[in-house]
Amino acid sequence: MGYNFIEILIKKRNGENLSPDEIEFLIKGYMKGLIPDYQFSAFLMAVFFRGMSFEETTYLTKAMLYTGKSLNLSDIKMPKIDKHSTGGVGDKVSLILAPLVACCGVCVPMISGRSLGHTGGTLDKLESIPGLRTNLTLNEFKNQLKKINLGIIGQTEEIAPADKKIYSLRDVTGTVESIPLITASIMSKKLAENLDGLVLDVKFGNGAFMKEYKTAKELARSLVNTGRRFGVKTIGILTDMNDPLGEYIGNSLEIIETIECLKGNGQEDLMKIILTLSESILKIARIQGGRELLLKKIKNSEALNKFREMIEYQGGNPKVIDDYNLLPVAKNHLVFSAPKTGYIKNIDTFKLGMLATKLGAGRLKKDDKIDIGCGFKIYKKTGNIVEKGEPVVKIFSDNKMLVKEVLNELNTVFVISSKPTKRKKLIRDIIR
Amino acid sequence: MGYNFIEILIKKRNGENLSPDEIEFLIKGYMKGLIPDYQFSAFLMAVFFRGMSFEETTYLTKAMLYTGKSLNLSDIKMPKIDKHSTGGVGDKVSLILAPLVACCGVCVPMISGRSLGHTGGTLDKLESIPGLRTNLTLNEFKNQLKKINLGIIGQTEEIAPADKKIYSLRDVTGTVESIPLITASIMSKKLAENLDGLVLDVKFGNGAFMKEYKTAKELARSLVNTGRRFGVKTIGILTDMNDPLGEYIGNSLEIIETIECLKGNGQEDLMKIILTLSESILKIARIQGGRELLLKKIKNSEALNKFREMIEYQGGNPKVIDDYNLLPVAKNHLVFSAPKTGYIKNIDTFKLGMLATKLGAGRLKKDDKIDIGCGFKIYKKTGNIVEKGEPVVKIFSDNKMLVKEVLNELNTVFVISSKPTKRKKLIRDIIR
Repeated sequence: MGYNFIEILIKKRNGENLSPDEIEFLIKGYMKGLIPDYQFSAFLMAVFFRGMSFEETTYLTKAMLYTGKSLNLSDIKMPKIDKHSTGGVGDKVSLILAPLVACCGVCVPMISGRSLGHTGGTLDKLESIPGLRTNLTLNEFKNQLKKINLGIIGQTEEIAPADKKIYSLRDVTGTVESIPLITASIMSKKLAENLDGLVLDVKFGNGAFMKEYKTAKELARSLVNTGRRFGVKTIGILTDMNDPLGEYIGNSLEIIETIECLKGNGQEDLMKIILTLSESILKIARIQGGRELLLKKIKNSEALNKFREMIEYQGGNPKVIDDYNLLPVAKNHLVFSAPKTGYIKNIDTFKLGMLATKLGAGRLKKDDKIDIGCGFKIYKKTGNIVEKGEPVVKIFSDNKMLVKEVLNELNTVFVISSKPTKRKKLIRDIIR
Repeated sequence: MGYNFIEILIKKRNGENLSPDEIEFLIKGYMKGLIPDYQFSAFLMAVFFRGMSFEETTYLTKAMLYTGKSLNLSDIKMPKIDKHSTGGVGDKVSLILAPLVACCGVCVPMISGRSLGHTGGTLDKLESIPGLRTNLTLNEFKNQLKKINLGIIGQTEEIAPADKKIYSLRDVTGTVESIPLITASIMSKKLAENLDGLVLDVKFGNGAFMKEYKTAKELARSLVNTGRRFGVKTIGILTDMNDPLGEYIGNSLEIIETIECLKGNGQEDLMKIILTLSESILKIARIQGGRELLLKKIKNSEALNKFREMIEYQGGNPKVIDDYNLLPVAKNHLVFSAPKTGYIKNIDTFKLGMLATKLGAGRLKKDDKIDIGCGFKIYKKTGNIVEKGEPVVKIFSDNKMLVKEVLNELNTVFVISSKPTKRKKLIRDIIR
């Protein structure tokens, strides 16, 4: 192809739309090393400012998708549906939702991510179960899906390698927050799963990557439109991330909470999101029964058993389900108590997430090591009444120095007011 | 300094102003290799979109200036004034203006550039004089200035090395056309000359880098304000570049034209610009006499003799002044004649410049070799009457294949109309 990269770059910089061939040239050229990082990063910044049309975003997604392999699940007759979250604090929804809808007759080929910044990662949480592997090859994954129609693995080298290379560059060049680039990044990976349907949990608020509802909604629309363009029934659900989700933050702590949810003891806010997303999946799958069916599958332990089955297939020790002592949880605790009586007016959920990362629950850089046993138990959420001296957060960590540092910093995370406050609506909008 | 580059990059990306310390950190970090090209290019693209305040531009200029040495001319008592052009087609103004104002009592420490794209370069032209060196060290340059108060050399490694490194990156990342970046690039080099005054020829029109008058004016203001901020009396003159300047385009051809101008035989348009800029220089220098003095210095051959003196000091053969056969000019010619009778309505001066580069008079890439003997003689300018078959352009080149190719392409360069047209005003505005 006789394209000149600088001309394409200047075209985008000047606000013109790129052709499908130009976009293909860009991605192939970058993957082959013909376009150096310093030119590609300037292009990414131009996209940050100029955006991309729906057509351009679609072709970018396609070009990135085609740099890798895709999962051929044509042998499996069940509807193949995945769920993806844009990331939040305490978000363990995937871990509960996946076995829940799988035991209703949906095949869930979930390719998930790791902790980044203030957010946790499904894979890190799952790996706190002794022995459990998330690094299956596409072939192993396929075989597991054929047998138990459920699996959660990490992104392999085979799936959309362009996304890995481009994301690494975006991460260090201030070009992460771009709707077309986020869309292509998420969808190039999800489309490689060859899905029938996809449900997206697009989070907004101070604990989400998108602080503004408006931007999150724009992203949700972009994701949904792109999914449909490729023939995947896609639903985007906009959920509030101004409070941590559920009771625990931290890897093995969230596995305990996952098991509790599957045993029917989930917190209200967390269960509301799990059930809403799961209902959407059932709708896409044309499975009757809705919320009632889902509740039944929890009550009769089918969902929990599906989770157990997955743990077994992925080499983990399923006994953790009945004995939490098999999970490595920090023995040292310290409680942050309310400095005064009042209502929780606001939680700085981003900071709470960053403090969890500071404890070791997450990563600031890709190579950072994780402490799977540390984290927080959250006693109070926005709108709750709290009395002076009452516990607000319990810190788990065997590093006593760190626990004290984090305790001090928690002072600014919870704002207590004398006026009653109401927590915001959890499910804000559904984009079909 | 404890700055984080990505934070500074995101700050600029979000439209915030950077502090002097942050700008210094950027430039030093980039020069030390602590900030890689792929991050710096994303920063440059963010500046392209967000611009820079006057304060930021000043500090950027300062930071770039301080990466190199500056010329200490405190021994020289004469006013030290330079002239700079943003570049055009057939622009040999510096070559005539420098000796002209030097013989009026101005010290001219001119650090000049080479051909790039459609424009020629003062150094390339000068080097077509056999033996002439433009690669003097700063010390050699200083000694020459002490003796004859005139010199034209190339940018040395010692002057603003940051500009060289940053310009190379801008050139391949679509970030050339940014007023703060252009300002810092020009002014960091010019301020290293430790001038009392600076006159800028800021060109606009289809043969200039800035096509639009409005943008050129904005650049002129930015340059003038920055110069003054550093205590240099700076004047910006906005000149029309919709026609090639003077009679010839090409290196040795423009040296012949330079000598003819200094002998009093210059074309009207070219002389108008030379005299206007020179008058501004005399004003800054507080030298009485104005245009009359300048014309006298041409008439009595003092300007020509100053040019001769400079050639001698820089190792060139001064006999070229009296014998043009000593200059290498292509022996092979071909004339492009008017295809019909009418008025020259418009000249695609950018294309004319690119055709000169195609002949070998200029460079597309830094390492391209130049053919100093080739070029064009221009017989007709916008507004001129032309009869069918009359010569419009004479092509000079010993590459006969190339001459024919260029001849064909000249068809689209000159637009002939039946209606009379007037050439636009040459000097459009003066910014003080």
